[in-house]
Amino acid sequence: MDLLKQKINSEGTVLSEHVLKVDSFINHQIDPALMVEIGKEFAKRFKDNQITKVLTIESSGIAPGLMAALELSVPVIFARKRKSLTLVNDVLTSTVHSFTKNETNEISVSSKFINSTDNVLIIDDFLANGQAALGLADLVQQAGANVAGIGIVIEKSFQQGRQLLNEKGYRVESLARIQSLENGKVTFSEEVGATL
Amino acid sequence: MDLLKQKINSEGTVLSEHVLKVDSFINHQIDPALMVEIGKEFAKRFKDNQITKVLTIESSGIAPGLMAALELSVPVIFARKRKSLTLVNDVLTSTVHSFTKNETNEISVSSKFINSTDNVLIIDDFLANGQAALGLADLVQQAGANVAGIGIVIEKSFQQGRQLLNEKGYRVESLARIQSLENGKVTFSEEVGATL
Repeated sequence: MDLLKQKINSEGTVLSEHVLKVDSFINHQIDPALMVEIGKEFAKRFKDNQITKVLTIESSGIAPGLMAALELSVPVIFARKRKSLTLVNDVLTSTVHSFTKNETNEISVSSKFINSTDNVLIIDDFLANGQAALGLADLVQQAGANVAGIGIVIEKSFQQGRQLLNEKGYRVESLARIQSLENGKVTFSEEVGATL
Repeated sequence: MDLLKQKINSEGTVLSEHVLKVDSFINHQIDPALMVEIGKEFAKRFKDNQITKVLTIESSGIAPGLMAALELSVPVIFARKRKSLTLVNDVLTSTVHSFTKNETNEISVSSKFINSTDNVLIIDDFLANGQAALGLADLVQQAGANVAGIGIVIEKSFQQGRQLLNEKGYRVESLARIQSLENGKVTFSEEVGATL
Protein backbone atom coordinates (compact mmCIF):
# COMPACT_ATOMS: atom_id res chain seq x y z
CA MET A 1 0.00 0.00 0.00
CA ASP A 2 1.98 2.95 -1.35
CA LEU A 3 0.36 5.70 0.73
CA LEU A 4 1.24 3.82 3.91
CA LYS A 5 4.82 3.17 2.83
CA GLN A 6 5.27 6.84 1.96
CA LYS A 7 3.99 7.78 5.39
CA ILE A 8 6.36 5.29 7.07
CA ASN A 9 9.26 6.75 5.08
CA SER A 10 8.38 10.34 5.87
CA GLU A 11 7.19 10.05 9.50
CA GLY A 12 8.35 6.70 10.89
CA THR A 13 11.39 6.63 13.16
CA VAL A 14 13.74 3.66 13.36
CA LEU A 15 14.59 3.34 17.06
CA SER A 16 16.63 0.15 16.74
CA GLU A 17 17.00 -2.84 14.43
CA HIS A 18 13.73 -4.17 15.85
CA VAL A 19 11.66 -1.10 16.70
CA LEU A 20 9.90 1.22 14.27
CA LYS A 21 8.07 4.12 15.88
CA VAL A 22 4.92 5.18 14.03
CA ASP A 23 3.27 7.04 16.89
CA SER A 24 2.61 10.17 14.83
CA PHE A 25 0.05 8.47 12.55
CA ILE A 26 -0.79 4.90 13.69
CA ASN A 27 -0.64 4.09 17.38
CA HIS A 28 -0.67 7.23 19.50
CA GLN A 29 -1.57 10.10 17.24
CA ILE A 30 -3.70 8.74 14.38
CA ASP A 31 -4.12 10.14 10.87
CA PRO A 32 -7.86 9.54 10.27
CA ALA A 33 -7.70 9.97 6.48
CA LEU A 34 -4.87 7.43 6.21
CA MET A 35 -6.84 5.07 8.46
CA VAL A 36 -9.82 5.30 6.08
CA GLU A 37 -7.53 4.20 3.23
CA ILE A 38 -6.15 1.37 5.36
CA GLY A 39 -9.72 0.21 6.02
CA LYS A 40 -10.52 0.34 2.31
CA GLU A 41 -7.42 -1.69 1.43
CA PHE A 42 -8.28 -4.43 3.94
CA ALA A 43 -11.86 -4.50 2.66
CA LYS A 44 -10.63 -4.80 -0.92
CA ARG A 45 -8.38 -7.74 -0.08
CA PHE A 46 -11.11 -9.62 1.80
CA LYS A 47 -14.16 -8.53 -0.21
CA ASP A 48 -14.84 -12.03 -1.56
CA ASN A 49 -14.56 -13.77 1.80
CA GLN A 50 -18.02 -13.18 3.29
CA ILE A 51 -16.58 -11.62 6.44
CA THR A 52 -19.22 -11.35 9.21
CA LYS A 53 -17.10 -9.83 12.00
CA VAL A 54 -13.81 -8.04 12.46
CA LEU A 55 -11.86 -8.90 15.61
CA THR A 56 -9.00 -6.76 16.87
CA ILE A 57 -7.26 -5.98 20.17
CA GLU A 58 -7.04 -2.83 22.27
CA SER A 59 -5.70 -0.27 21.86
CA SER A 60 -3.77 0.18 18.63
CA GLY A 61 -5.86 -2.30 16.67
CA ILE A 62 -9.10 -0.40 17.18
CA ALA A 63 -8.60 2.30 14.53
CA PRO A 64 -7.64 -0.01 11.63
CA GLY A 65 -10.18 -2.62 12.79
CA LEU A 66 -12.97 -0.06 12.91
CA MET A 67 -12.18 1.30 9.45
CA ALA A 68 -11.98 -2.19 7.92
CA ALA A 69 -15.30 -3.10 9.54
CA LEU A 70 -16.89 0.11 8.28
CA GLU A 71 -15.89 -0.71 4.71
CA LEU A 72 -17.01 -4.34 5.04
CA SER A 73 -20.31 -3.27 6.68
CA VAL A 74 -19.85 -5.60 9.65
CA PRO A 75 -19.35 -5.02 13.40
CA VAL A 76 -15.89 -4.87 14.96
CA ILE A 77 -15.08 -6.34 18.36
CA PHE A 78 -11.96 -5.42 20.27
CA ALA A 79 -10.50 -7.96 22.67
CA ARG A 80 -9.62 -6.52 26.05
CA LYS A 81 -6.29 -7.13 27.68
CA ARG A 82 -7.89 -7.84 31.04
CA LYS A 83 -11.36 -8.22 32.38
CA SER A 84 -13.39 -5.20 33.37
CA LEU A 85 -15.94 -5.25 36.18
CA THR A 86 -18.79 -5.07 33.68
CA LEU A 87 -17.43 -7.89 31.54
CA VAL A 88 -17.09 -10.96 33.71
CA ASN A 89 -19.60 -13.55 32.51
CA ASP A 90 -19.38 -15.70 29.43
CA VAL A 91 -15.96 -14.59 28.29
CA LEU A 92 -13.50 -16.38 26.09
CA THR A 93 -9.90 -15.87 27.18
CA SER A 94 -6.44 -16.51 25.80
CA THR A 95 -2.92 -15.46 26.73
CA VAL A 96 -0.61 -13.19 24.77
CA HIS A 97 3.02 -12.45 25.48
CA SER A 98 4.36 -9.14 24.19
CA PHE A 99 8.11 -9.23 23.59
CA THR A 100 8.13 -5.45 22.97
CA LYS A 101 6.56 -4.67 26.33
CA ASN A 102 7.97 -7.76 28.04
CA GLU A 103 4.68 -8.68 29.65
CA THR A 104 2.02 -11.36 29.39
CA ASN A 105 -1.63 -10.35 29.18
CA GLU A 106 -4.83 -12.29 29.35
CA ILE A 107 -7.00 -11.21 26.44
CA SER A 108 -10.74 -11.72 26.41
CA VAL A 109 -13.90 -11.23 24.39
CA SER A 110 -17.50 -11.71 25.39
CA SER A 111 -18.65 -15.00 23.91
CA LYS A 112 -21.97 -13.47 22.89
CA PHE A 113 -20.37 -11.52 20.05
CA ILE A 114 -18.75 -14.43 18.18
CA ASN A 115 -20.55 -17.63 17.34
CA SER A 116 -20.06 -20.72 15.20
CA THR A 117 -21.56 -19.14 12.06
CA ASP A 118 -19.07 -16.24 12.07
CA ASN A 119 -16.35 -15.77 9.51
CA VAL A 120 -13.88 -13.52 11.26
CA LEU A 121 -11.24 -11.16 9.89
CA ILE A 122 -8.53 -10.49 12.49
CA ILE A 123 -6.89 -7.04 12.26
CA ASP A 124 -3.89 -5.64 14.13
CA ASP A 125 -1.50 -2.73 13.69
CA PHE A 126 1.77 -4.68 13.89
CA LEU A 127 2.90 -8.22 13.18
CA ALA A 128 6.18 -9.07 14.89
CA ASN A 129 6.28 -12.38 16.73
CA GLY A 130 2.66 -13.21 15.92
CA GLN A 131 1.59 -13.71 19.52
CA ALA A 132 -1.33 -11.26 19.46
CA ALA A 133 -2.68 -12.67 16.19
CA LEU A 134 -2.40 -16.22 17.51
CA GLY A 135 -4.22 -15.23 20.70
CA LEU A 136 -7.02 -13.63 18.69
CA ALA A 137 -7.24 -16.68 16.41
CA ASP A 138 -7.48 -18.85 19.51
CA LEU A 139 -10.47 -16.80 20.72
CA VAL A 140 -12.19 -17.22 17.34
CA GLN A 141 -11.63 -20.96 17.42
CA GLN A 142 -12.88 -21.27 21.00
CA ALA A 143 -16.11 -19.66 19.74
CA GLY A 144 -16.32 -22.34 17.03
CA ALA A 145 -16.03 -19.67 14.33
CA ASN A 146 -13.76 -19.53 11.28
CA VAL A 147 -10.66 -17.34 10.88
CA ALA A 148 -11.05 -15.96 7.37
CA GLY A 149 -7.69 -14.23 7.49
CA ILE A 150 -5.39 -11.88 9.32
CA GLY A 151 -4.93 -8.28 8.19
CA ILE A 152 -1.86 -6.42 9.42
CA VAL A 153 -0.98 -2.75 8.91
CA ILE A 154 2.81 -3.12 9.33
CA GLU A 155 4.61 -6.45 9.22
CA LYS A 156 8.14 -6.80 10.49
CA SER A 157 9.04 -9.61 8.12
CA PHE A 158 12.40 -10.21 9.81
CA GLN A 159 10.63 -11.52 12.91
CA GLN A 160 8.93 -14.89 13.11
CA GLY A 161 5.25 -13.92 13.16
CA ARG A 162 4.44 -14.24 9.46
CA GLN A 163 6.07 -17.66 9.20
CA LEU A 164 4.31 -18.89 12.35
CA LEU A 165 0.89 -17.78 11.08
CA ASN A 166 1.47 -19.23 7.61
CA GLU A 167 2.55 -22.55 9.13
CA LYS A 168 -0.77 -22.69 10.96
CA GLY A 169 -2.54 -22.20 7.65
CA TYR A 170 -3.72 -18.63 8.11
CA ARG A 171 -3.90 -16.21 5.22
CA VAL A 172 -1.98 -13.07 6.18
CA GLU A 173 -2.41 -9.77 4.35
CA SER A 174 0.03 -7.05 5.41
CA LEU A 175 -0.24 -3.55 3.97
CA ALA A 176 3.46 -2.77 4.49
CA ARG A 177 6.09 -5.50 4.84
CA ILE A 178 9.38 -4.43 6.32
CA GLN A 179 12.35 -6.57 5.44
CA SER A 180 14.85 -4.76 7.63
CA LEU A 181 15.40 -1.83 9.97
CA GLU A 182 19.17 -2.12 9.78
CA ASN A 183 21.38 0.97 9.63
CA GLY A 184 18.52 3.15 10.83
CA LYS A 185 16.70 2.66 7.54
CA VAL A 186 13.35 1.11 6.60
CA THR A 187 13.70 -1.42 3.79
CA PHE A 188 10.44 -2.80 2.45
CA SER A 189 10.22 -6.40 1.24
CA GLU A 190 9.70 -5.52 -2.42
CA GLU A 191 12.97 -3.64 -2.54
CA VAL A 192 14.99 -6.77 -1.85
CA GLY A 193 12.95 -8.96 -4.18
CA ALA A 194 11.16 -10.95 -1.51
CA THR A 195 8.17 -13.07 -2.48
CA LEU A 196 4.87 -11.35 -1.70
CA MET B 1 -28.96 12.38 18.91
CA ASP B 2 -31.98 10.25 18.12
CA LEU B 3 -30.19 7.36 16.40
CA LEU B 4 -27.99 6.87 19.46
CA LYS B 5 -30.92 7.01 21.88
CA GLN B 6 -32.82 4.44 19.80
CA LYS B 7 -29.79 2.18 19.90
CA ILE B 8 -29.47 2.61 23.68
CA ASN B 9 -33.16 1.76 24.07
CA SER B 10 -32.99 -1.30 21.84
CA GLU B 11 -29.57 -2.73 22.75
CA GLY B 12 -28.44 -1.14 26.02
CA THR B 13 -28.77 -3.14 29.23
CA VAL B 14 -29.35 -1.52 32.62
CA LEU B 15 -27.22 -3.53 35.04
CA SER B 16 -27.91 -1.36 38.09
CA GLU B 17 -28.99 2.18 38.96
CA HIS B 18 -25.49 3.32 37.99
CA VAL B 19 -24.37 0.98 35.23
CA LEU B 20 -25.57 0.94 31.63
CA LYS B 21 -24.03 -1.74 29.46
CA VAL B 22 -23.56 -0.73 25.82
CA ASP B 23 -20.96 -3.32 24.90
CA SER B 24 -22.82 -4.50 21.80
CA PHE B 25 -22.33 -1.22 19.90
CA ILE B 26 -20.01 1.23 21.75
CA ASN B 27 -17.27 -0.19 23.95
CA HIS B 28 -16.57 -3.84 23.15
CA GLN B 29 -18.38 -4.64 19.94
CA ILE B 30 -18.66 -1.42 17.90
CA ASP B 31 -21.24 -0.52 15.27
CA PRO B 32 -19.10 1.31 12.68
CA ALA B 33 -22.01 3.00 10.88
CA LEU B 34 -23.36 4.39 14.17
CA MET B 35 -19.85 5.55 15.04
CA VAL B 36 -19.66 7.50 11.75
CA GLU B 37 -22.87 9.30 12.70
CA ILE B 38 -21.49 10.01 16.18
CA GLY B 39 -18.40 11.54 14.57
CA LYS B 40 -20.55 13.68 12.28
CA GLU B 41 -22.65 14.93 15.19
CA PHE B 42 -19.55 15.96 17.20
CA ALA B 43 -18.12 17.68 14.11
CA LYS B 44 -21.39 19.54 13.58
CA ARG B 45 -21.46 20.82 17.15
CA PHE B 46 -17.85 22.02 17.08
CA LYS B 47 -17.59 23.06 13.42
CA ASP B 48 -17.17 26.77 14.26
CA ASN B 49 -14.49 26.23 16.89
CA GLN B 50 -11.34 25.88 14.76
CA ILE B 51 -10.45 22.54 16.34
CA THR B 52 -6.85 21.53 15.55
CA LYS B 53 -6.65 18.22 17.46
CA VAL B 54 -8.94 15.66 19.02
CA LEU B 55 -7.73 14.10 22.28
CA THR B 56 -9.28 10.94 23.70
CA ILE B 57 -8.28 8.06 25.97
CA GLU B 58 -7.78 4.36 25.35
CA SER B 59 -9.63 2.18 24.70
CA SER B 60 -13.31 3.07 24.41
CA GLY B 61 -12.66 6.67 23.41
CA ILE B 62 -10.70 5.76 20.29
CA ALA B 63 -13.64 4.92 18.00
CA PRO B 64 -15.71 8.09 18.65
CA GLY B 65 -12.53 10.21 18.80
CA LEU B 66 -11.32 8.86 15.47
CA MET B 67 -14.64 9.45 13.75
CA ALA B 68 -14.93 12.99 15.12
CA ALA B 69 -11.37 13.73 13.98
CA LEU B 70 -12.09 12.31 10.53
CA GLU B 71 -15.08 14.64 10.10
CA LEU B 72 -13.13 17.64 11.43
CA SER B 73 -10.10 16.77 9.24
CA VAL B 74 -7.67 16.88 12.15
CA PRO B 75 -5.47 14.23 13.85
CA VAL B 76 -6.67 12.33 16.92
CA ILE B 77 -4.37 11.43 19.82
CA PHE B 78 -5.29 8.82 22.37
CA ALA B 79 -3.86 9.13 25.86
CA ARG B 80 -2.41 5.90 27.19
CA LYS B 81 -3.25 4.58 30.62
CA ARG B 82 0.35 3.71 31.35
CA LYS B 83 3.67 4.22 29.70
CA SER B 84 4.90 1.83 27.06
CA LEU B 85 8.56 1.02 26.50
CA THR B 86 8.59 3.02 23.27
CA LEU B 87 6.94 6.06 24.82
CA VAL B 88 9.06 7.24 27.71
CA ASN B 89 10.55 10.61 26.82
CA ASP B 90 8.80 13.95 26.78
CA VAL B 91 5.46 12.76 28.09
CA LEU B 92 2.78 14.75 29.85
CA THR B 93 1.09 12.77 32.60
CA SER B 94 -1.97 13.11 34.80
CA THR B 95 -3.88 10.81 37.14
CA VAL B 96 -7.41 9.46 36.67
CA HIS B 97 -9.46 7.51 39.16
CA SER B 98 -12.13 5.23 37.74
CA PHE B 99 -14.96 4.61 40.18
CA THR B 100 -16.42 1.94 37.85
CA LYS B 101 -13.23 -0.07 37.81
CA ASN B 102 -12.09 1.06 41.26
CA GLU B 103 -8.57 1.81 40.13
CA THR B 104 -6.30 4.79 39.60
CA ASN B 105 -4.35 5.09 36.37
CA GLU B 106 -1.65 7.38 35.22
CA ILE B 107 -2.57 8.70 31.79
CA SER B 108 -0.02 10.13 29.40
CA VAL B 109 0.46 11.70 26.00
CA SER B 110 3.63 12.49 24.15
CA SER B 111 4.22 16.22 24.46
CA LYS B 112 5.25 16.47 20.81
CA PHE B 113 1.65 16.04 19.62
CA ILE B 114 0.05 18.94 21.54
CA ASN B 115 1.49 22.42 21.62
CA SER B 116 0.48 25.90 22.70
CA THR B 117 -1.20 26.77 19.40
CA ASP B 118 -3.59 23.80 19.59
CA ASN B 119 -7.31 24.10 20.11
CA VAL B 120 -8.28 20.68 21.43
CA LEU B 121 -11.59 18.84 21.40
CA ILE B 122 -11.69 16.17 24.12
CA ILE B 123 -13.84 13.11 23.30
CA ASP B 124 -14.85 10.17 25.50
CA ASP B 125 -17.52 7.47 25.40
CA PHE B 126 -18.96 8.03 28.90
CA LEU B 127 -19.25 10.93 31.32
CA ALA B 128 -19.95 9.79 34.88
CA ASN B 129 -17.79 11.37 37.56
CA GLY B 130 -15.80 13.43 35.09
CA GLN B 131 -12.40 12.16 36.20
CA ALA B 132 -11.21 11.03 32.76
CA ALA B 133 -12.28 14.30 31.12
CA LEU B 134 -10.56 16.32 33.85
CA GLY B 135 -7.38 14.29 33.42
CA LEU B 136 -7.42 14.87 29.66
CA ALA B 137 -8.08 18.60 30.16
CA ASP B 138 -5.13 18.67 32.56
CA LEU B 139 -2.88 17.20 29.84
CA VAL B 140 -4.05 19.85 27.35
CA GLN B 141 -3.33 22.62 29.84
CA GLN B 142 0.10 21.24 30.69
CA ALA B 143 0.85 21.53 26.96
CA GLY B 144 -0.21 25.18 27.07
CA ALA B 145 -3.05 24.46 24.64
CA ASN B 146 -6.72 25.40 24.79
CA VAL B 147 -9.61 23.06 25.65
CA ALA B 148 -12.23 23.98 23.04
CA GLY B 149 -14.79 21.65 24.54
CA ILE B 150 -15.61 18.16 25.70
CA GLY B 151 -17.70 15.79 23.57
CA ILE B 152 -19.32 12.81 25.29
CA VAL B 153 -21.22 9.96 23.69
CA ILE B 154 -23.29 9.00 26.75
CA GLU B 155 -23.66 11.24 29.81
CA LYS B 156 -24.95 9.85 33.08
CA SER B 157 -26.46 13.14 34.20
CA PHE B 158 -27.29 11.80 37.67
CA GLN B 159 -23.58 11.62 38.51
CA GLN B 160 -21.43 14.63 39.23
CA GLY B 161 -19.25 14.82 36.09
CA ARG B 162 -21.27 17.31 34.05
CA GLN B 163 -21.59 19.73 36.97
CA LEU B 164 -17.89 19.46 37.79
CA LEU B 165 -16.86 20.19 34.18
CA ASN B 166 -19.31 23.09 33.84
CA GLU B 167 -18.04 24.60 37.11
CA LYS B 168 -14.54 24.59 35.62
CA GLY B 169 -15.88 26.50 32.63
CA TYR B 170 -15.74 23.73 30.04
CA ARG B 171 -18.33 23.44 27.32
CA VAL B 172 -19.74 19.90 27.40
CA GLU B 173 -21.65 18.39 24.47
CA SER B 174 -23.22 15.01 25.19
CA LEU B 175 -25.02 13.09 22.45
CA ALA B 176 -27.25 11.19 24.88
CA ARG B 177 -27.99 12.45 28.39
CA ILE B 178 -29.36 9.91 30.81
CA GLN B 179 -31.36 11.30 33.71
CA SER B 180 -31.91 7.99 35.46
CA LEU B 181 -31.37 4.25 35.28
CA GLU B 182 -33.91 3.56 38.04
CA ASN B 183 -36.27 0.58 37.85
CA GLY B 184 -34.15 -1.04 35.18
CA LYS B 185 -35.16 1.64 32.68
CA VAL B 186 -33.23 4.29 30.74
CA THR B 187 -34.80 7.74 31.13
CA PHE B 188 -33.24 10.45 28.96
CA SER B 189 -33.01 14.02 30.22
CA GLU B 190 -35.56 15.43 27.78
CA GLU B 191 -38.26 13.10 29.04
CA VAL B 192 -38.19 14.67 32.50
CA GLY B 193 -37.98 18.25 31.23
CA ALA B 194 -34.37 18.87 32.18
CA THR B 195 -32.57 21.88 30.77
CA LEU B 196 -30.32 20.94 27.87
